[in-house]
Amino acid sequence: MAQCTLPRMNIYELTVPQTMKMLRNLDNWLGSAVAHGEKKKFDANTLLHSRLAPDQFALVRQVQTACDNAKFIAGRLTGKEWPAHPDTETTIPELKSRIASVLAFLETFKAEDFAGADERKISLPWMEGKWMRGDEYVTQFALANFYFHVAMAYGILRHNGVDLGKRDYIGGVPMRS
Amino acid sequence: MAQCTLPRMNIYELTVPQTMKMLRNLDNWLGSAVAHGEKKKFDANTLLHSRLAPDQFALVRQVQTACDNAKFIAGRLTGKEWPAHPDTETTIPELKSRIASVLAFLETFKAEDFAGADERKISLPWMEGKWMRGDEYVTQFALANFYFHVAMAYGILRHNGVDLGKRDYIGGVPMRS
Repeated sequence: MAQCTLPRMNIYELTVPQTMKMLRNLDNWLGSAVAHGEKKKFDANTLLHSRLAPDQFALVRQVQTACDNAKFIAGRLTGKEWPAHPDTETTIPELKSRIASVLAFLETFKAEDFAGADERKISLPWMEGKWMRGDEYVTQFALANFYFHVAMAYGILRHNGVDLGKRDYIGGVPMRS
Repeated sequence: MAQCTLPRMNIYELTVPQTMKMLRNLDNWLGSAVAHGEKKKFDANTLLHSRLAPDQFALVRQVQTACDNAKFIAGRLTGKEWPAHPDTETTIPELKSRIASVLAFLETFKAEDFAGADERKISLPWMEGKWMRGDEYVTQFALANFYFHVAMAYGILRHNGVDLGKRDYIGGVPMRS
């Protein structure tokens, strides 16, 4: 492949800064959940057991999985080792610490770390030795999966009356003039 | 910018084939909703009014919005006009027709239509004349928004007992060996 200027649509921007933004949004929603609990005089940590269907992950696991997806994406695409998180969180402050830990890990990445990432062979535990190319992994699996768990966390909070709206979901976007 | 081979991570793959895949998945979930209604002897169209929170879109509008997002993304990035859909659907078969109509529109796109799309100025109705670059629009707004509505549709169906799982959400992925 000829050497050339990096195109703006690149695998780093799509993954690290964007999953960081969504994790920061998720952290804010958990803050809104705490505020909702204080206003309604219930322990917001009870929400961690809420789920949309009995055979779907509860909120605690949706948040843990969103965190894992974000670190897996960056780690798998670059070959960097990610920090372990043993899924022991039982409170909202503990989940917020987990998010902070993943954000600190993601902060260590630079765009250059992703050179060649779209050509990298990515094999997931359930793929039994088969693999996807890095670009296929991001486009067809990783973003869909990450957004899924973030959206389910949002949906569970909305279903429980937490005061959130679409802007809280999307977060800030560039506004050029 | 130097001329060079198109990197695999490109704005067309991220948008057209992937939103088409997710719309096909969504179409399958609606099929599962009909099957669930038949099994439980209720009219599956009642699900169209279901929502996760009283101030959130009901299923019918989640599906309509996912369809709109998919056509808007392709249309805005290429400058092509999209077909109008007046939001009159009241049944699952009508929603499935809407999905089919958007899929037919998306079928008309080729990767070449997206040349320069990441540099294109994208202005959304609520941006009051401001704009995002095409790459920012896809990375920071459009995919997050599209996946949001698809995931909410999935969440509403799961909440109502429709027999779906994560594989139905993700759909097929490449398995190379």
